[in-house]
Amino acid sequence: MLSFENDYSAAACPQIIARMQQVQNETHPGYGTDDYCKAAAGKIRALCDNPESDIWFLTGGTQTNQVVIDSITAQYAGVVCADSAHINTHEAGAIEATGHKVLALPQQDGKISAPQLDDYCERFNADANHTHMVRPGCVYVSQPTEYGTVYTRAELAALAQVAHDHGMPLFIDGARLGYALTCDANDANLDDLARIADVFTIGGTKVGAMFGEAVVFTRGNTPENFTALVKLHGALLAKGWLLGLQFDTLFTDDLYFQLSKHANAQADKIRQALLDKGYDIAFVSQTNQIFITVTHSRAQELQQQVKLGFMEAVDASHVMLRICTSWATTDDQVAALIALL
Amino acid sequence: MLSFENDYSAAACPQIIARMQQVQNETHPGYGTDDYCKAAAGKIRALCDNPESDIWFLTGGTQTNQVVIDSITAQYAGVVCADSAHINTHEAGAIEATGHKVLALPQQDGKISAPQLDDYCERFNADANHTHMVRPGCVYVSQPTEYGTVYTRAELAALAQVAHDHGMPLFIDGARLGYALTCDANDANLDDLARIADVFTIGGTKVGAMFGEAVVFTRGNTPENFTALVKLHGALLAKGWLLGLQFDTLFTDDLYFQLSKHANAQADKIRQALLDKGYDIAFVSQTNQIFITVTHSRAQELQQQVKLGFMEAVDASHVMLRICTSWATTDDQVAALIALL
Amino acid sequence: MLSFENDYSAAACPQIIARMQQVQNETHPGYGTDDYCKAAAGKIRALCDNPESDIWFLTGGTQTNQVVIDSITAQYAGVVCADSAHINTHEAGAIEATGHKVLALPQQDGKISAPQLDDYCERFNADANHTHMVRPGCVYVSQPTEYGTVYTRAELAALAQVAHDHGMPLFIDGARLGYALTCDANDANLDDLARIADVFTIGGTKVGAMFGEAVVFTRGNTPENFTALVKLHGALLAKGWLLGLQFDTLFTDDLYFQLSKHANAQADKIRQALLDKGYDIAFVSQTNQIFITVTHSRAQELQQQVKLGFMEAVDASHVMLRICTSWATTDDQVAALIALL
Amino acid sequence: MLSFENDYSAAACPQIIARMQQVQNETHPGYGTDDYCKAAAGKIRALCDNPESDIWFLTGGTQTNQVVIDSITAQYAGVVCADSAHINTHEAGAIEATGHKVLALPQQDGKISAPQLDDYCERFNADANHTHMVRPGCVYVSQPTEYGTVYTRAELAALAQVAHDHGMPLFIDGARLGYALTCDANDANLDDLARIADVFTIGGTKVGAMFGEAVVFTRGNTPENFTALVKLHGALLAKGWLLGLQFDTLFTDDLYFQLSKHANAQADKIRQALLDKGYDIAFVSQTNQIFITVTHSRAQELQQQVKLGFMEAVDASHVMLRICTSWATTDDQVAALIALL
Repeated sequence: MLSFENDYSAAACPQIIARMQQVQNETHPGYGTDDYCKAAAGKIRALCDNPESDIWFLTGGTQTNQVVIDSITAQYAGVVCADSAHINTHEAGAIEATGHKVLALPQQDGKISAPQLDDYCERFNADANHTHMVRPGCVYVSQPTEYGTVYTRAELAALAQVAHDHGMPLFIDGARLGYALTCDANDANLDDLARIADVFTIGGTKVGAMFGEAVVFTRGNTPENFTALVKLHGALLAKGWLLGLQFDTLFTDDLYFQLSKHANAQADKIRQALLDKGYDIAFVSQTNQIFITVTHSRAQELQQQVKLGFMEAVDASHVMLRICTSWATTDDQVAALIALL
Repeated sequence: MLSFENDYSAAACPQIIARMQQVQNETHPGYGTDDYCKAAAGKIRALCDNPESDIWFLTGGTQTNQVVIDSITAQYAGVVCADSAHINTHEAGAIEATGHKVLALPQQDGKISAPQLDDYCERFNADANHTHMVRPGCVYVSQPTEYGTVYTRAELAALAQVAHDHGMPLFIDGARLGYALTCDANDANLDDLARIADVFTIGGTKVGAMFGEAVVFTRGNTPENFTALVKLHGALLAKGWLLGLQFDTLFTDDLYFQLSKHANAQADKIRQALLDKGYDIAFVSQTNQIFITVTHSRAQELQQQVKLGFMEAVDASHVMLRICTSWATTDDQVAALIALL
Repeated sequence: MLSFENDYSAAACPQIIARMQQVQNETHPGYGTDDYCKAAAGKIRALCDNPESDIWFLTGGTQTNQVVIDSITAQYAGVVCADSAHINTHEAGAIEATGHKVLALPQQDGKISAPQLDDYCERFNADANHTHMVRPGCVYVSQPTEYGTVYTRAELAALAQVAHDHGMPLFIDGARLGYALTCDANDANLDDLARIADVFTIGGTKVGAMFGEAVVFTRGNTPENFTALVKLHGALLAKGWLLGLQFDTLFTDDLYFQLSKHANAQADKIRQALLDKGYDIAFVSQTNQIFITVTHSRAQELQQQVKLGFMEAVDASHVMLRICTSWATTDDQVAALIALL
Repeated sequence: MLSFENDYSAAACPQIIARMQQVQNETHPGYGTDDYCKAAAGKIRALCDNPESDIWFLTGGTQTNQVVIDSITAQYAGVVCADSAHINTHEAGAIEATGHKVLALPQQDGKISAPQLDDYCERFNADANHTHMVRPGCVYVSQPTEYGTVYTRAELAALAQVAHDHGMPLFIDGARLGYALTCDANDANLDDLARIADVFTIGGTKVGAMFGEAVVFTRGNTPENFTALVKLHGALLAKGWLLGLQFDTLFTDDLYFQLSKHANAQADKIRQALLDKGYDIAFVSQTNQIFITVTHSRAQELQQQVKLGFMEAVDASHVMLRICTSWATTDDQVAALIALL
């Protein structure tokens, strides 16, 4: 059956599979201390144009959010984010499991804004009872957001400014970062992120790798004893060099960007077809996720012919569905989907 | 200076102080295994008309919420409550510190309703991704609420029904329970609570005791190894018999109810005066807390003459203030306050 | 029945009971922001001869250990202590509940030594796998120890030196501190502790108060947002001024020292009688706890006439019992016990 | 340089690499809900001869121990194990990070025994203060142990019996299980483990896979909402089918056993050479790990020519080194090592 369900249902891009085969007889030291991790980190550091950045490799997205947030947030503090943020909605309480409250602000197009963040912090400071409240301790945004939208460089810089004014680091979750970096509207490149954020991630799992998230601490600000912290969270991969190998491959010959661009282009074709056919598209997005609002019966029809992500019930008669492309989406699949719409 | 700031600024009612003096030469076994705890539990059990109820005594309110919620909620689950709930707003993240997400629903007059709870749970169940979400694991309501309002017996019973239908216990936080039990509108007595709730608390700290919260597990459902759990949370008082002694005193000769009734009556006089003078009272409450909305300048004037709790900024020009009476509020103090209004 | 079971079975010394009665009509701001806490802190600071020291008041011993250790220990680190330490044996896992491993070293007379600590840390540093191990993050000792023995000033200073050399704070748990400070062998006074330790506590619960532990951070090194941390652990007492009042009383007219001295003197009489009668005393202690090794049958006989703490089975035929005096132990009680021995 | 450092430095066995290549164009549903996971589970279930067993797949060893122990241990309880257990020594506090104390008993040849466990539990039960102590809540053993030794079926059955008598599940960590299952001395096969243990794991990472640990709950006793728990610990792999694929490969045509047998045979040759040359072998082991005690200078010499794991300092002049073979160890490597010895 045709599937536009998500961007992580294929194993990995051919280049990574080939590389795995190539290196199968090599041996490497464990836990990310190997040369592939060094090489991958070097390539990412160069793209970030930031010699101070430290790069680490973890396995999964929720795991990475948990480790990063727990490591940058004081034990008495919480993490501020949009109420639609992955850490607030779809991580099964992984953040709270480490003792931190998720302080959710109302999203707009999946985003929070600098004035909104500032207002929240100012109210906290002004509240006479704030020692009894959870102090905002770091700021989390997703790029692209869970709704496929993209923050502009100016928006991110403004959020960072407010965060820093209030003594908080800014963490950008880039689980799908490639799809933001390569969309037409984007003006926040890796080097911008490396200047603006205190820590951000570059997702591999959803952008061509088998698994893997690169974590970039941008100011030589890796938390103390970070390896031990990663281990303590059960997140230290024995054969860490498999992560390095994948990111080294993704950041050779622009592969990461090409894979991402392909997914966006496939989504663009679908978006155009949806507009042509008069569908109600829920967010203005240029990345690989498209959200459409349809009636229950139309949803049922569609889902009998193509796997789509269910987003949420909108009202008594409408639901929101997600169409998601990936680096692996073929022209034939796109044509087949458009024919169904 | 005149103070209507809160209901926990006096040491304890005279009967408790006297009792402390009386027993000062006695010795007792520690950690709540003494005869005073047994006696107090017996009196509470009798009032609850529920021979199956187990009664425990802890020291403080946040502590009690933390211990109770952690002990009744599966490790992967969260606690559902109003967004105005004390555990969501003013416990510094004590619930999240034990790994549980607080699942906050929009309050109405400080309350949540059975249909609202049911809808939330049904949406959770219907969501195809719910294994990635935090499962609602118990329900928390405050009686009276943080806004001084009171749930009716029918409302509580309906909440319990929905909670039970979804496999969740209902926990009623009675930090100020006396003020609910004795207000005119109340129709949910101790025996009702002991039938409806799975666990509820009877607050001492704010109702005449030096400190102390009684926890009532109503169905012989004390969590396994509860004493160890209390200890593990740092909440096991060495001289636990001081808790028993206080609750024994409070539940002798109706003292708990008389102290509470007094505070409500004093609040009623103030409420009437406020209405007479045209004040904007924010919630329809009959308990010992009154919330008024006033201009900034009026707030400043008032606060120069009487200590009042600051609640929150309402809009650019108005704030909400809290007037709080207690068992210790005198007629003179009430008269003085009314004169100022 | 005669009881030498523990030092926390009486309510409080008469001076504290009297003071409670005296102040019963006063009102005070909550959470330790009152004048009694300030006064008590001032007296303790003066005795410590350390203007940089910050003093806080908590309710119970396990609670205090949990809050202090969690606040001074990095999230990836553990707390080093003797294997006989209260935090390792009798706090129901309260330290692990906050995520920290207890790193227990073999005790000798209830103590650990500076060379032992240094050796442990050096082995950790030398271990090629130490990023996979729990890093020693702070050092905990009890004064007096759980076996009633007392560290000398030189021993504590040496431990502090080693701890600091390895980047760790030294925390001295003084749940029974009075009994150490006033025993004949003691040469580590409050001002010594305030120079040597990074944080120490002065126990009230076991030395004349109803409840309460004073926490002294000796170098202006109170952890950031400590009040919020205390609250988050459920340990912030609403009527915090009751703690201040008690410590203010204990540190007026040398009361704390007199109460302690009395208990030690009573223990000394019992110790002498035990020696005279040929008992096997398990540790050389000069404080209020005496440990004797007796046969099972002798233990049974004794326990029929006097409540004693059971310590542990020594071998198939012997057990260790604890005789514990307190500030409240009378001459008659001592005489009655000696008559039984 | 020659390396006998560990058993996880090669990517994966050729069959797994080939399979990855084969399936690269397939797509599968995420999070372990795919057909490969089902197929692999079926093969494992058949080998276990236990239709009640539930099989799950996680990524890494520490992660798996953390998730399993946290899911089977009451929140107030600890995990009993040998003091040499991986969870006690080399998991950076991952168990304590979830709130559970590790209750370490003295190891003998890396093992604990049923009488030792029973004695520990009986002492706990007999202790009058046990509500203040950490209750033993589950039992953890490694098969083979961290010292390469192997429990007999009778030893495991006896441990299970004692554990069950005390209300505890037995968890067998099989991170290197293949090496135990195929060593000459072994008499505890998969079906025995599936009868004896409540939960055990089958390690892939160290036995031919890229990564992956299979978790077998043997009595239909998967903890409630286990997927959510896995997610909450950051341990749910998006492309879970990559785990299923690897285990399906390992349990096709006896591959898992052949890979393991090979490593043991290589170790046997080295063991014989060591004995012939008069080396001091530290534990009687028949699996793929060999521990030798050598002088510092001999250790230094060896380590210049071959990578070996450093185990620990034995005394002032001796250290213990580990020689570790794997499924990938070649005859040439063995010959080269023997030549060096």
